[in-house]
Amino acid sequence: MATVRLIPEEEAGGRVRAVYEDIKRTKQIDRVPDLWRALANSPDLLEQTWTELKGVMGPGRLDPLVKEMVALAVSVTNGCAYCINSHTAAVRRLGLDDETFGEFMAVVALFNKTNSLADGFQVEPDVRPPVE
Amino acid sequence: MATVRLIPEEEAGGRVRAVYEDIKRTKQIDRVPDLWRALANSPDLLEQTWTELKGVMGPGRLDPLVKEMVALAVSVTNGCAYCINSHTAAVRRLGLDDETFGEFMAVVALFNKTNSLADGFQVEPDVRPPVE
Amino acid sequence: MATVRLIPEEEAGGRVRAVYEDIKRTKQIDRVPDLWRALANSPDLLEQTWTELKGVMGPGRLDPLVKEMVALAVSVTNGCAYCINSHTAAVRRLGLDDETFGEFMAVVALFNKTNSLADGFQVEPDVRPPVE
Amino acid sequence: MATVRLIPEEEAGGRVRAVYEDIKRTKQIDRVPDLWRALANSPDLLEQTWTELKGVMGPGRLDPLVKEMVALAVSVTNGCAYCINSHTAAVRRLGLDDETFGEFMAVVALFNKTNSLADGFQVEPDVRPPVE
Amino acid sequence: MATVRLIPEEEAGGRVRAVYEDIKRTKQIDRVPDLWRALANSPDLLEQTWTELKGVMGPGRLDPLVKEMVALAVSVTNGCAYCINSHTAAVRRLGLDDETFGEFMAVVALFNKTNSLADGFQVEPDVRPPVE
Amino acid sequence: MATVRLIPEEEAGGRVRAVYEDIKRTKQIDRVPDLWRALANSPDLLEQTWTELKGVMGPGRLDPLVKEMVALAVSVTNGCAYCINSHTAAVRRLGLDDETFGEFMAVVALFNKTNSLADGFQVEPDVRPPVE
Repeated sequence: MATVRLIPEEEAGGRVRAVYEDIKRTKQIDRVPDLWRALANSPDLLEQTWTELKGVMGPGRLDPLVKEMVALAVSVTNGCAYCINSHTAAVRRLGLDDETFGEFMAVVALFNKTNSLADGFQVEPDVRPPVE
Repeated sequence: MATVRLIPEEEAGGRVRAVYEDIKRTKQIDRVPDLWRALANSPDLLEQTWTELKGVMGPGRLDPLVKEMVALAVSVTNGCAYCINSHTAAVRRLGLDDETFGEFMAVVALFNKTNSLADGFQVEPDVRPPVE
Repeated sequence: MATVRLIPEEEAGGRVRAVYEDIKRTKQIDRVPDLWRALANSPDLLEQTWTELKGVMGPGRLDPLVKEMVALAVSVTNGCAYCINSHTAAVRRLGLDDETFGEFMAVVALFNKTNSLADGFQVEPDVRPPVE
Repeated sequence: MATVRLIPEEEAGGRVRAVYEDIKRTKQIDRVPDLWRALANSPDLLEQTWTELKGVMGPGRLDPLVKEMVALAVSVTNGCAYCINSHTAAVRRLGLDDETFGEFMAVVALFNKTNSLADGFQVEPDVRPPVE
Repeated sequence: MATVRLIPEEEAGGRVRAVYEDIKRTKQIDRVPDLWRALANSPDLLEQTWTELKGVMGPGRLDPLVKEMVALAVSVTNGCAYCINSHTAAVRRLGLDDETFGEFMAVVALFNKTNSLADGFQVEPDVRPPVE
Repeated sequence: MATVRLIPEEEAGGRVRAVYEDIKRTKQIDRVPDLWRALANSPDLLEQTWTELKGVMGPGRLDPLVKEMVALAVSVTNGCAYCINSHTAAVRRLGLDDETFGEFMAVVALFNKTNSLADGFQVEPDVRPPVE
């Protein structure tokens, strides 16, 4: 159970209502997800986080599905259940099929393994990207 | 400094030599990276990990650059210095330019932030991907 | 469900009973929280952990609410559900209001983000506190 | 070594220069810290992150020193070296003395320990903050 | 709820069936655990992971109980609920009694604490294992 | 560089000197490791942590080498460089040979991988240890 009230849409006014409407319009969904209802207890945090997410996940160089896969890789590595569910739903909606999803998860799993090997043996960087 | 000897190429024999050669051929590089030299102290671990990596990162549904971005997202989230250096070099070699790299990192940073918000407010999953 | 039995108060004897009583008296609560009931399977661990917590969280230089906010920041960053619930309840009991709670969580979220940026770009420390 | 160029102040123009100047003015320092020089490769990310940080760490309900302690608690828990150095310097500048610093670190350490105990025994939340 | 279907044993064919049978035979259990049913959506990932686990956890230099304690220490530190439950059951089946289990958890907890102290004070390695 | 002074042995007096002497005697070493020199800035934290470590790592049900392997597994999973170096040195001193060390690291790496798979697919516990 969330540790704060989830502000229902019918109670939302002012800035909170504006963000709620923008979330539904932008994501083309008809219910505001619970994370945003939790953030709505702090209108500043809600607005700041939504504006940031809208900008970062909006049109850019990277494909929306790639961005959602990156978001899911972060969430799995952090073990954040809400986030894993949310970003899994997103990559599915964007068309990631079963086979490719398995391939994706194999990549995430492999590098969580090799990360622990590199840390475990305390190997120092041997490749450095060119910096001027 | 690594906590194990890094087995030099000229000392590698048998299975270790075979993996070393395959790494250089597959990655088209002329020096075996230090992580593999550390793993070479345990030929089983070296062989198993390389075979897994070669399979997972080899031809499949996902683009090689996407796989390396996922690997980098995992590594940044874990804070693994060796891995961040290695996968940053890889995404650069595969053509990720400065602007797109910044966009990628903004995605990684944003979701490390929202992960802590979802965990912090203990929000429960509101979206579940369809399971039969 | 906990992976060990939660020792009920009526079964507690000897050292376990003494710690249980001290927990209730010190925290001014009338039920021993479940973490302590789990630890009670190992009287040494129960006693050592309670003594440590009582000392660290007892009177000192830092305000009790500040200590609980630090505890909550650690728990959110680790994603420990039990701990987040427990320390959220504590900061609330100590008077943290809704608005300040949102401000607190914005700080936790921001630095989980900048931590991943500093790790992601492998930036080296530029500021070092004076050490003799 | 950072995986991107650290943009020097004398090369900064336009939005980057404006942020650089604001950072120095706001923090009352005469050198832009390296994290911001790394972010400057992506003016959007630089500007967004600085604006967020300036807002979150600016005047509010929580004391600046408390905010920096929360930032340090997050950074220690994540093991982010750059961030630990930076926020340690900040809490020192804001007046945290040696004895209180030790008390602070004892709190951070204790809860990293109890977090692992609560996770290890899979104890379920027994206290829930009041939600309407 | 898992984010993928858990493939039931009666639907498993070909490689998936072969792995399912091997899991039950090797672990001497009569039901395939849910993690493997999730992995079965990706036969390659199922087969690769099971082959690796069977090799790593099979006869070697380290005692099976020691290996399961190491697995549990990793899982507690990562806060992975499924894994903590699974490896706790395994160490119990292998004979770890209540008292020793408490001792084990005290070790895990202590080093999660000292890890945060060493990171928190940014202490540099003073002991290096001999490397040639 | 550590963020606090490392208190040299010749400056240590009173409680700090007593702990320093006990560390050297107990561990049979002739130099106090740097973590303890950092903690010495807070005599309470030094004394409390050393007393806890001496108790937990002292004679008990678990073998000293097993305890150090558990400590190392925790440290690798957290990515704590100081701790990895220190506990690697300890397991070596206690006789872990090269081959077994590789086997140990393969276990740590495997479960960091399967942890991310279980979290990634959000698999729920299917095995629960018997609780009364």
